Amino acid sequence: MKILAFGEVMMRMMPSDYKTLTQVNELEFLFTGTGVNILSGLYQMGEDVSLLTRLPDNAVGKAASANIRKLGINDHYIVYGDNHIGIYFLEKGIGNRASQVTYLNRKDSSFGHSQLSDYDLSCLDGQDALHICGISLAMNNNVREVAFKLAKEAKRRGIKVIFDCNFRPSLWNENERKNVKSIYEDMLQLADIVFAGYKDATLLLEMNVDHNLPLKQQLELLLKQMCHDYHIEAILGTIRQDETLSGYMMSKDVFTMSQEYSLTVYDRVGGGDGFAAGAIYGYLHNMPSAKLVDYATVSGVLAHTTYGDSPIVSREQIIDFMENGRSDIKR
Amino acid sequence: MKILAFGEVMMRMMPSDYKTLTQVNELEFLFTGTGVNILSGLYQMGEDVSLLTRLPDNAVGKAASANIRKLGINDHYIVYGDNHIGIYFLEKGIGNRASQVTYLNRKDSSFGHSQLSDYDLSCLDGQDALHICGISLAMNNNVREVAFKLAKEAKRRGIKVIFDCNFRPSLWNENERKNVKSIYEDMLQLADIVFAGYKDATLLLEMNVDHNLPLKQQLELLLKQMCHDYHIEAILGTIRQDETLSGYMMSKDVFTMSQEYSLTVYDRVGGGDGFAAGAIYGYLHNMPSAKLVDYATVSGVLAHTTYGDSPIVSREQIIDFMENGRSDIKR
Amino acid sequence: MKILAFGEVMMRMMPSDYKTLTQVNELEFLFTGTGVNILSGLYQMGEDVSLLTRLPDNAVGKAASANIRKLGINDHYIVYGDNHIGIYFLEKGIGNRASQVTYLNRKDSSFGHSQLSDYDLSCLDGQDALHICGISLAMNNNVREVAFKLAKEAKRRGIKVIFDCNFRPSLWNENERKNVKSIYEDMLQLADIVFAGYKDATLLLEMNVDHNLPLKQQLELLLKQMCHDYHIEAILGTIRQDETLSGYMMSKDVFTMSQEYSLTVYDRVGGGDGFAAGAIYGYLHNMPSAKLVDYATVSGVLAHTTYGDSPIVSREQIIDFMENGRSDIKR
Amino acid sequence: MKILAFGEVMMRMMPSDYKTLTQVNELEFLFTGTGVNILSGLYQMGEDVSLLTRLPDNAVGKAASANIRKLGINDHYIVYGDNHIGIYFLEKGIGNRASQVTYLNRKDSSFGHSQLSDYDLSCLDGQDALHICGISLAMNNNVREVAFKLAKEAKRRGIKVIFDCNFRPSLWNENERKNVKSIYEDMLQLADIVFAGYKDATLLLEMNVDHNLPLKQQLELLLKQMCHDYHIEAILGTIRQDETLSGYMMSKDVFTMSQEYSLTVYDRVGGGDGFAAGAIYGYLHNMPSAKLVDYATVSGVLAHTTYGDSPIVSREQIIDFMENGRSDIKR
Amino acid sequence: MKILAFGEVMMRMMPSDYKTLTQVNELEFLFTGTGVNILSGLYQMGEDVSLLTRLPDNAVGKAASANIRKLGINDHYIVYGDNHIGIYFLEKGIGNRASQVTYLNRKDSSFGHSQLSDYDLSCLDGQDALHICGISLAMNNNVREVAFKLAKEAKRRGIKVIFDCNFRPSLWNENERKNVKSIYEDMLQLADIVFAGYKDATLLLEMNVDHNLPLKQQLELLLKQMCHDYHIEAILGTIRQDETLSGYMMSKDVFTMSQEYSLTVYDRVGGGDGFAAGAIYGYLHNMPSAKLVDYATVSGVLAHTTYGDSPIVSREQIIDFMENGRSDIKR
Amino acid sequence: MKILAFGEVMMRMMPSDYKTLTQVNELEFLFTGTGVNILSGLYQMGEDVSLLTRLPDNAVGKAASANIRKLGINDHYIVYGDNHIGIYFLEKGIGNRASQVTYLNRKDSSFGHSQLSDYDLSCLDGQDALHICGISLAMNNNVREVAFKLAKEAKRRGIKVIFDCNFRPSLWNENERKNVKSIYEDMLQLADIVFAGYKDATLLLEMNVDHNLPLKQQLELLLKQMCHDYHIEAILGTIRQDETLSGYMMSKDVFTMSQEYSLTVYDRVGGGDGFAAGAIYGYLHNMPSAKLVDYATVSGVLAHTTYGDSPIVSREQIIDFMENGRSDIKR
Repeated sequence: MKILAFGEVMMRMMPSDYKTLTQVNELEFLFTGTGVNILSGLYQMGEDVSLLTRLPDNAVGKAASANIRKLGINDHYIVYGDNHIGIYFLEKGIGNRASQVTYLNRKDSSFGHSQLSDYDLSCLDGQDALHICGISLAMNNNVREVAFKLAKEAKRRGIKVIFDCNFRPSLWNENERKNVKSIYEDMLQLADIVFAGYKDATLLLEMNVDHNLPLKQQLELLLKQMCHDYHIEAILGTIRQDETLSGYMMSKDVFTMSQEYSLTVYDRVGGGDGFAAGAIYGYLHNMPSAKLVDYATVSGVLAHTTYGDSPIVSREQIIDFMENGRSDIKR
Repeated sequence: MKILAFGEVMMRMMPSDYKTLTQVNELEFLFTGTGVNILSGLYQMGEDVSLLTRLPDNAVGKAASANIRKLGINDHYIVYGDNHIGIYFLEKGIGNRASQVTYLNRKDSSFGHSQLSDYDLSCLDGQDALHICGISLAMNNNVREVAFKLAKEAKRRGIKVIFDCNFRPSLWNENERKNVKSIYEDMLQLADIVFAGYKDATLLLEMNVDHNLPLKQQLELLLKQMCHDYHIEAILGTIRQDETLSGYMMSKDVFTMSQEYSLTVYDRVGGGDGFAAGAIYGYLHNMPSAKLVDYATVSGVLAHTTYGDSPIVSREQIIDFMENGRSDIKR
Repeated sequence: MKILAFGEVMMRMMPSDYKTLTQVNELEFLFTGTGVNILSGLYQMGEDVSLLTRLPDNAVGKAASANIRKLGINDHYIVYGDNHIGIYFLEKGIGNRASQVTYLNRKDSSFGHSQLSDYDLSCLDGQDALHICGISLAMNNNVREVAFKLAKEAKRRGIKVIFDCNFRPSLWNENERKNVKSIYEDMLQLADIVFAGYKDATLLLEMNVDHNLPLKQQLELLLKQMCHDYHIEAILGTIRQDETLSGYMMSKDVFTMSQEYSLTVYDRVGGGDGFAAGAIYGYLHNMPSAKLVDYATVSGVLAHTTYGDSPIVSREQIIDFMENGRSDIKR
Repeated sequence: MKILAFGEVMMRMMPSDYKTLTQVNELEFLFTGTGVNILSGLYQMGEDVSLLTRLPDNAVGKAASANIRKLGINDHYIVYGDNHIGIYFLEKGIGNRASQVTYLNRKDSSFGHSQLSDYDLSCLDGQDALHICGISLAMNNNVREVAFKLAKEAKRRGIKVIFDCNFRPSLWNENERKNVKSIYEDMLQLADIVFAGYKDATLLLEMNVDHNLPLKQQLELLLKQMCHDYHIEAILGTIRQDETLSGYMMSKDVFTMSQEYSLTVYDRVGGGDGFAAGAIYGYLHNMPSAKLVDYATVSGVLAHTTYGDSPIVSREQIIDFMENGRSDIKR
Repeated sequence: MKILAFGEVMMRMMPSDYKTLTQVNELEFLFTGTGVNILSGLYQMGEDVSLLTRLPDNAVGKAASANIRKLGINDHYIVYGDNHIGIYFLEKGIGNRASQVTYLNRKDSSFGHSQLSDYDLSCLDGQDALHICGISLAMNNNVREVAFKLAKEAKRRGIKVIFDCNFRPSLWNENERKNVKSIYEDMLQLADIVFAGYKDATLLLEMNVDHNLPLKQQLELLLKQMCHDYHIEAILGTIRQDETLSGYMMSKDVFTMSQEYSLTVYDRVGGGDGFAAGAIYGYLHNMPSAKLVDYATVSGVLAHTTYGDSPIVSREQIIDFMENGRSDIKR
Repeated sequence: MKILAFGEVMMRMMPSDYKTLTQVNELEFLFTGTGVNILSGLYQMGEDVSLLTRLPDNAVGKAASANIRKLGINDHYIVYGDNHIGIYFLEKGIGNRASQVTYLNRKDSSFGHSQLSDYDLSCLDGQDALHICGISLAMNNNVREVAFKLAKEAKRRGIKVIFDCNFRPSLWNENERKNVKSIYEDMLQLADIVFAGYKDATLLLEMNVDHNLPLKQQLELLLKQMCHDYHIEAILGTIRQDETLSGYMMSKDVFTMSQEYSLTVYDRVGGGDGFAAGAIYGYLHNMPSAKLVDYATVSGVLAHTTYGDSPIVSREQIIDFMENGRSDIKR
């Protein structure tokens, strides 16, 4: 299958081990972003994946695309211009101490300064699915316009539109906050497959539900309503409780939950994208619902055990874990 | 507030990860010492902190003061002479294997060879508190003389004298062992705030207590007696049980204990200094007792999760943990 | 005591931390092999240990012997020829993700291409024990011939023959698979001390036992039978259950089991060799059975906590753990 | 002596050795800037130095000030706000391949967004000299206003004003380019000591000189004129020819040139700041002209041999080199 | 343009700095091979490049293709099977000490065990040129058969056949040595563009030339003859003298030599491939001869200054060097 | 041949690249000493070498002996006691900047505290030569006593006594300085082979020579006189001039000088020991004088190109260099 993702690429920088910025003179770095991560996971499952983005027209942009290719992602549609990229620093915590993320200027990146005329819509040719992330909606009018244009064009051509809500209030400034709901609603109308959860329904979309019901039942009702309101094929997501992770899918009025998997966390960032990659794979390949949510959740569970934001676990490893559970060593 | 600490600086060297000295060709190093650690913690809480010590008059001494400044500690009162510094190697253990500390020559360091005439007592000008560590008492007559002179002069000027018993029998040679009790008693008479525990009271000061009482009650009785005997404002310390840590304070005949905090250990050395820094901050800022012991204990708990001996957790992080408990990630 | 081991040396290469091969540009390496590991452990217990093997006649072979010497192993009997060495890559897993071992060509190593005429049997002079590993039997006819010649000659001279079954089906090709049982039986007839377990007895040697009995009793019956059938002095091994490890010994019809030790795993490979080193030491020094199995098991338990395949824990550390249990730090 | 510098702090990131960004996963970093570098050099010569700047109010800003303190620079006047810092990537070249510098967004840094109200002019209290860099003039109106306010206030108080032209056309946008000359002229009127060269005089200040004269004589005439036109006490700078470096000073109508020193380059960035630090030290301490330019040039020469942009060579090392020349090793 | 290369991929492992294998515990690695290197250089010049090879069907093979993609090379035609790859260790020398290369088993790699049926000739569809390396001829009959099949098929389709003689006697065993000349002659008959030099003509092809003529003239005569004998469009190569490098081309009976460039060597391996990449680019784009050899030689000169075997210098950097010569730093 | 060296082992610690102590958080370390270095070089030439020394009885001492074994040196005669080792920091300079060595306490090492009763003279059994270094004479009375006892006992047994003057004034305190000459004279009387130069003869031994003669002739006269006065078989040494190195030998009244070799320096420390190892090998194997001094000098020249103090270049590499000169790469 061929999948295209549109989205921002960031540079992540991290002190080694569990040190802080003031304790080191070196930083490990990698390139990340929701689109990059989803595609990285899908490549491991055998898909033909491409990224649509705009990178700095300098050594950093070239390094970004080289690393993206290394993840298995096609860089033919990437364009270059301007000279900035968003950077975030991750100081990994351990035990009682939380990991700390610090962002540098993100809005003025080459991606943030991109607009419709920078991209060539022929990138959609031959694609089976298009992935859009809520972060792109938060960037600014120009980037948002690209996202909507792509989604509409995909819809028109019968390419599945996948939308990950990924709602982060801090990315929306005062003025735009009041339009968030309607912007999201417009995108949900275009989407076939959506990643969303309880908070998206109640806080972002301001949906109502009987708070006296059990939480899981509330979620089921909300997602069913969302599917109806916005004509969505399937809504997927995860529930994290203490040290466990479960995935769910609402599709055709049926709510399916995965097993509850014990979670061991090595590198937390990108765990959600591991679930999403598995879910997209399962959905596009018509997995039965029960298997799909298990496959996706195990993909997410294993993504928590690998270095970096981008899932690098293969389909074979996921299936082996589903069939045989955890083991020490494979020879 | 302005706080001055007098004490030894050591160089800590450590193989990476959990390797041993024979398994590596490189060592990570940092500069440490009770005084350095307390001040590092207090700097993170917003205090103006200075170290009084004597370092080698060579590249190692210059590197030590540069690293001390990096921790936020004022190095104006540091003097230089001779050319040796104490070094300890830390081979970090994991799980069933204990960490192993190996000391090289420590007594012949530039600090160990220092004497009263090396230091200028004007360093006490404008200070709110003076910190003295039991290690300095163990060094030799000359260093001990400096510690007592500083404590007396501080007492005279109304500067709070903080004394950390830090009693290590191995540092006292045969001849001096018989005088340890009286030396400590002299210092306790000068001290306003003291870090001490059950063993200090019973083994070092040879105090008696009814062993049939519950341990906590024994401790309370012993500390109350200590306060009376030596005219101490407050005695503070921690109790470690398996995987938990609690702090306590005896002050004005009231014994206050913190909550019991679950402990996760990444770098064990310096955890006690994290508690002490929090306790000094809380005491000097007149925190209510219950809050003080919680604040200090959380400071100690978080100090167990950071690389290095010197606490580097900010007041904001401590308060956030007290209010919200443990979390995965902060963005 | 003087102990000689005959066996293959491999090069192990590993990404740092928990990264995979595609995520790194550097690899940590070390030299390993059952013989190397056993001898490394025995050196730490005070023995005079030598390795008999054949290494590449180039810079890699020289590096191998230098590293072997560093482990405390005498390299006087090592011979050099050809230019290949077996390499395995270890991608360390964590939590839910298993470690992954990938082998490159192993059969065509300088060791795999060695034959009787390459070695000088005077290496047996003055030895107290000879260690042979099942891997050598699996190599090919030439190497197997060396193993048998050494075992027979040792037997003739009254040198204890120690045989570690270490049966790995994947190393035996189709043709040789049918002879495995009789090859092993020939070696067992020559061996005085054997490392073997339930599967060796039932699958490899095709022994029968009443499956309705408790597992431990089945094991006891099988090992007793093995001792009788092949005239073995002692059979030793370990049982791993979830997060615990126990050791056992069958000797003179008495079956002794160690305590059950909680297991913490840092570097899994070589844990079994840690047990074997401890068991050989205990046996050659006539430890009482109960102490022997505890000593050996603790040796294995601690070998799981050190970097690398080769046990590097000293006799003193093992005994300290047996007497005082786990501790945080030793100063 | 007390010296204050006002200027931007940047983060420099560099692959190890001579690798490029696409060849590494880690970057070495440090904090730099003309002001930081000058002060670092002056600290090594024994001065009391402080930096006035604005850093991000987050973990990166805190790391910057910690590293600045480590260089020996007082951070009391640093203020914090916003969350961005300029970053540049240095891919070090070797031999026939040039080093490559790549800048990310620099204008939107916390420093670039700073204005007069962010700073407290009491930072000038007790200072002997103030250092201003041409980069600050290029930032924007707000930052330029701060620079002029500081220079005027320093002038008023009799604090020496040191101005480093550091003219980089690429930092000035189209609109501002036309005002550059008059802006520089205003600052030169305020300055006592200036770092400038042939291009500053002819291109920036559009001064005329007889091109038929020998270059050195042209330079002399230009600088003499500059001193007269703008009432400057001394103008200093360096001439690089192939693999040699010479320094010069025009002061009181006397033009003094240093010896010509053979140059060996390890880390090129910051070499000019090494000269400037030496020149400022020599000038403030009333060194005779000939010694001053030699001292400054050797300071620059040695700054080319150390890692990082910030000079870290001590006064003793400079004087030893002046007296004894190059040597292999000092014990 | 689209270029396909057929050839072996090896893993290069190197101690850091100038250390030897016995002095390190880590090795830097990368994937290399004549085909990989040529394509890497051509990618930097803007070409669409693909590699045809066979890699191990395991984690090492996957890492190899990921790294190849990172270099900008299309991996669509790579096939996977078996589990071995050739490895070479590079201990970098410096000054008076030569670099040392040590090879492990290379013949039994997945590539060495590959045969015609493993590959799909559709990889030639749409290609403008095919690159074959003499190493592939030395492998064995099966691999040689693939090389000839590809060359013939390319010839048939009008795809330019590029052949790099790369004759290494040590790779040919006794039996095959006697056929080398005729094998090479067969390939030369198929080739359009050839990389060869004096030794190839005289030693390999046993051509005669008047040894009394100047060397350059001898070379010219030999290459002219070669072009005629084997119907070659162009023969290219380099001459290294002490610390200089010159390139040459014989085409249409015209012999063109480049300028003589001073050579600075950082990583020697792959310098020749840098020349070849430049030459292929120049030839396919119809550069005039004089410019072509200069472009190619500068490409080779700069390839000596970068880490790794694979050229990573861009067309822009080459042209800048041709036009402006050497410089210190580019901002 | 069997060679025993008696001498101090030190730990060398070094920042990576050309950084200084304040610029790093890690240090590379290795174990060194004149004896270690000489033996390391002799092992590479095929000799059976052992070190006699006293190391700390802790993890550092164990690491030292493990690293010494790795160099090929027998550690059977090493004894353990006390807990300190001498450490020196090497900050490597480059170009115009000199390398800087900083010593920590050296006199109080386990070796410095050793005495005759710590060692077992049976270490001399079967030795062909004994190496003593002037550093041991400078330590203190106890260590000096060991050196003399060993030299006398070796003399008595007909074991060649090799003495390296290695005179460092800074190691001798005021009181002992007046006895230095007579102490050295006593040792020279016992020595068969001596490493010494112009300064040893004139400054240490206060010998006279006509200063009007050419320097080389003065040296010849001085060494001839030394041989006569102290009954020395051969005196050897090197002359460094700018970037060249020459070796010399005075033996049986014949003065032989090597060729003058161009010197390229990567790691300067230990270069002299490289010469000494070559000279000892040549002398013990009765090389003709001219070949001996060339062999020794090339050994020294190559020792300047390897990392670390201990020569690691093989006899084959030395001979290849003597025969073929410098080359780029060996495959």
